[in-house]
Amino acid sequence: MMDREQALLLVKEQITEHRYTHTLGVTDTAITLAKRYGADVKKAEMAAIFHDYAKFRSKEEMAAIIRQQKMDPQLLSFNSELWHAPVGAYLVHKEAGIEDEEILDAIRYHTSGRVGMTLLEKVIYVADYIEPGRHFPGVEEVRELAEEDLDKALIQSLKNTIQFLMKRDQPVFPDTFHTYNNLVSSQKEKEMS
Amino acid sequence: MMDREQALLLVKEQITEHRYTHTLGVTDTAITLAKRYGADVKKAEMAAIFHDYAKFRSKEEMAAIIRQQKMDPQLLSFNSELWHAPVGAYLVHKEAGIEDEEILDAIRYHTSGRVGMTLLEKVIYVADYIEPGRHFPGVEEVRELAEEDLDKALIQSLKNTIQFLMKRDQPVFPDTFHTYNNLVSSQKEKEMS
Repeated sequence: MMDREQALLLVKEQITEHRYTHTLGVTDTAITLAKRYGADVKKAEMAAIFHDYAKFRSKEEMAAIIRQQKMDPQLLSFNSELWHAPVGAYLVHKEAGIEDEEILDAIRYHTSGRVGMTLLEKVIYVADYIEPGRHFPGVEEVRELAEEDLDKALIQSLKNTIQFLMKRDQPVFPDTFHTYNNLVSSQKEKEMS
Repeated sequence: MMDREQALLLVKEQITEHRYTHTLGVTDTAITLAKRYGADVKKAEMAAIFHDYAKFRSKEEMAAIIRQQKMDPQLLSFNSELWHAPVGAYLVHKEAGIEDEEILDAIRYHTSGRVGMTLLEKVIYVADYIEPGRHFPGVEEVRELAEEDLDKALIQSLKNTIQFLMKRDQPVFPDTFHTYNNLVSSQKEKEMS
């Protein structure tokens, strides 16, 4: 697998300094969470380093890739903030040569979530939400949950996201609430068993 | 069409006194909203009278009807509070002889909502939410919105419902989310045109 320094160099030229600092925060946090919950630490590191690779591509380029690569066409009618995740997975494979599907999926689903998220996907999603550079209402609660229960942290971050969007009368990408439904249902099954 | 007294008699023997009082509140409110927004007043009255017709059927009977009538099978994995609406539409047709599809749809979708709700469906949904017997946080705001803009009242009631469920870690029926997305998107188009 590519080493950390190589990966960081590739990412650094794609994103702003501010976003690079965020990426380092996500990477540290992802490593900590991977160790805590037993995910593959090296894959978590790589996925975190590359998670925002496509963040500064133009909307035009991202829309063209979504169409050409026959990604979920619904994406195009929702906020373009969602696009860099699946487009990132595609470009990280194509341009940076990352072939590991688990890493690519963790990048692909780091903004929307999906039903049946893997442990690695959860680690990256939560790390992106709670890395030390994040400051918004509710983040501290998710940080505390992430010390004890990754799923509870993820559920709380999804709730916060949905709540944030509803407050602004923004639509919510369907995968995000399907992920929420999926996780609260699994949580209930866990508690009943 | 059946007259009000006949309809009320049929409903009264199906539900508790408390629910009957609620039904009278929904009926008055639905008539007011129908007049305000130009919906069919007589249909609004009938739909309101019958909207909770199936509320006290057993879960077993409702589940059997959902299966036999090939209603959305997803219903069965969500809260049974949702079931009386589609089951009600079926029983109101079968037992009370109501054949008007607009009335039946208003009953069918009064709990979940659906993408592309008709004016009559919106009137019943909102009337059920704000009738004078309702007392819960947020209801007053929806009452005020319903004086000015039925869609805004509906969006707010959907937000409150989703928020209420998320606070309790309950899953949210997908149609409810899709209805919210559909309405905020239409609202944005309206504002931009």
